Amino acid sequence: MLQYLGLENGVITLILSTLFLALWKMWPTKKWDPRGQFCYVTGGSSGLGLAVAIALTKRGAHVTIVARNEERLAKALAELEKTRQSSNQILRSYSFSLTDADASYAALEAASKDHGNKYPDTVFMCAGAARPGFFVEEDAKSMQKGMDNTYWIQAYTALAYTKQLVRSQTSGKLVFTCSLLGYMSLIGYSTYSPGKHALRGLAESLRSELILYNSSVHIMFSGNIDSPGYVEENRTKPKITLEIESTDKPTAPDVLAKELINGVQRGDFHIAPDMLSNIIRSSTTGATPHHNVLLDVLYALIGWIGLPLWRRGVDSTVLKHRKEHKDYLATRGFFKSTD
Amino acid sequence: MLQYLGLENGVITLILSTLFLALWKMWPTKKWDPRGQFCYVTGGSSGLGLAVAIALTKRGAHVTIVARNEERLAKALAELEKTRQSSNQILRSYSFSLTDADASYAALEAASKDHGNKYPDTVFMCAGAARPGFFVEEDAKSMQKGMDNTYWIQAYTALAYTKQLVRSQTSGKLVFTCSLLGYMSLIGYSTYSPGKHALRGLAESLRSELILYNSSVHIMFSGNIDSPGYVEENRTKPKITLEIESTDKPTAPDVLAKELINGVQRGDFHIAPDMLSNIIRSSTTGATPHHNVLLDVLYALIGWIGLPLWRRGVDSTVLKHRKEHKDYLATRGFFKSTD
Repeated sequence: MLQYLGLENGVITLILSTLFLALWKMWPTKKWDPRGQFCYVTGGSSGLGLAVAIALTKRGAHVTIVARNEERLAKALAELEKTRQSSNQILRSYSFSLTDADASYAALEAASKDHGNKYPDTVFMCAGAARPGFFVEEDAKSMQKGMDNTYWIQAYTALAYTKQLVRSQTSGKLVFTCSLLGYMSLIGYSTYSPGKHALRGLAESLRSELILYNSSVHIMFSGNIDSPGYVEENRTKPKITLEIESTDKPTAPDVLAKELINGVQRGDFHIAPDMLSNIIRSSTTGATPHHNVLLDVLYALIGWIGLPLWRRGVDSTVLKHRKEHKDYLATRGFFKSTD
Repeated sequence: MLQYLGLENGVITLILSTLFLALWKMWPTKKWDPRGQFCYVTGGSSGLGLAVAIALTKRGAHVTIVARNEERLAKALAELEKTRQSSNQILRSYSFSLTDADASYAALEAASKDHGNKYPDTVFMCAGAARPGFFVEEDAKSMQKGMDNTYWIQAYTALAYTKQLVRSQTSGKLVFTCSLLGYMSLIGYSTYSPGKHALRGLAESLRSELILYNSSVHIMFSGNIDSPGYVEENRTKPKITLEIESTDKPTAPDVLAKELINGVQRGDFHIAPDMLSNIIRSSTTGATPHHNVLLDVLYALIGWIGLPLWRRGVDSTVLKHRKEHKDYLATRGFFKSTD
């Protein structure tokens, strides 16, 4: 692998490719246009998923939303109908439990029936949920549930869709939605950040394989979203985690939906919706393609200095809670239980 | 979170902390010494796990190895006996299936019985396996099995051990073993790199929480290991992946075992056993603590230029296989199957 790095002429190649990219970016290229495209949105009944579905409908796409709760789905579909651009647009909703592999497959099959058995042009995987807590209070079941609601809820759809794409010898786009907790982690997210990290790994492996099928993979890394899910997760979030996040302001779903669609249009693999995401993205870029090389250097520099300092601040905040946390565990009967 | 980054006085703090760290590193500190410590090694019957168990035995630790295959365990224990330093050393082996949460708990309980119900001082999680393949040929079962053999096989032990540590109000060390495929990914590893990425996320969340329990977390990111597992995984590895890795040379388990123990002794959170791992670690550091700040800048710079170039090389290698891959899928009857 070291030989592959090609360090001996790396700098020259970097300069040449920067120039090439700069010129290429100035060239008018044909952007992905949702108009008339069949877009499939999981988690489409609320939060980010619903915002994505609305944005796509407004841009003239055929939109199918999938989620579990039928009541919320019906309300969401009514909202989509309000933003319909033409009578030709096919707008549909389906209730399926996407933490199940077979249901994820069946949902895509059902949706494709509305389009003459054609599979979606693009799949937006927005389903997911967090349930923060202390690791010592988790058990095998809650850990597995965490993995279901972060990783499998998107991975099963990706698996079904990729098979259908390749089997029908067409091409498409897989769009995952991840979190800044797919780049880094902290106290309280032991059932959430593993699955989000796993999505990053899956997306990078798929990006590589899907070159074979002329299909593309995208994944957005966003901070907290101002959604019903966020309100829900804050109910079980440890005090320490809430304190660390106290300066965060969750982003509105429609802002993120716009950034997500823009990112897909630009052809970004890792989609970073704001400056903070760009700083963290560039600081953990590894073998992921750069965006704008010069801007990424700047972001990486800021992250290089700022993020380990942030970590030090977080560590000392955690340390201050030692006594309080021990009392908390005692109150919960932790030291007496045996599970 | 942005406010936390403290960019306004970041540079001054960086300079001061670099000086502080440089001075601190020159100070003689008490290193972790395995002698007389109770070390628990999963996957201890072969490959890296066995090498770690031998290295710890040679350094005078009490060592318990856990793995599934009883025959291999017996042979491994005989090897440990050969390197015993004193008659007081407690060397034991247990057969448990660590992809099961209850068995992972029971294994630790059984091991602790040999030490008067005292839990291990350090847990080395070396169990794991890879089964590379094309994503389109995976199914839900093989994906789940991949997650079992990469993530759960270590996460369940971490869960059981952390609960036992905190409940018995003692402190300890969790040592995960990950892979460079926990930092990045490529074609062929869709059932492997997600779980390895997940371990990175879990370790980072636990490092943060375990500050509360005065315990530490470590995780090693290594390339291919010259082990029975490596021979096994190469049997199912796609041709393309083998071609991309053709310049790699797997590292001997005893070399990695030494680096792993050295890393724990130094107190590194992310343990990088060689230059390539250090380059990738520094290029994807994010909010992970730096090692030597100056050296890490150099590594990151090399990675910044080299890794995206490597990725470009990999992408074009994959692209060249498009026709061959389609023929391969046709031969396998992929286009006719419906699973």
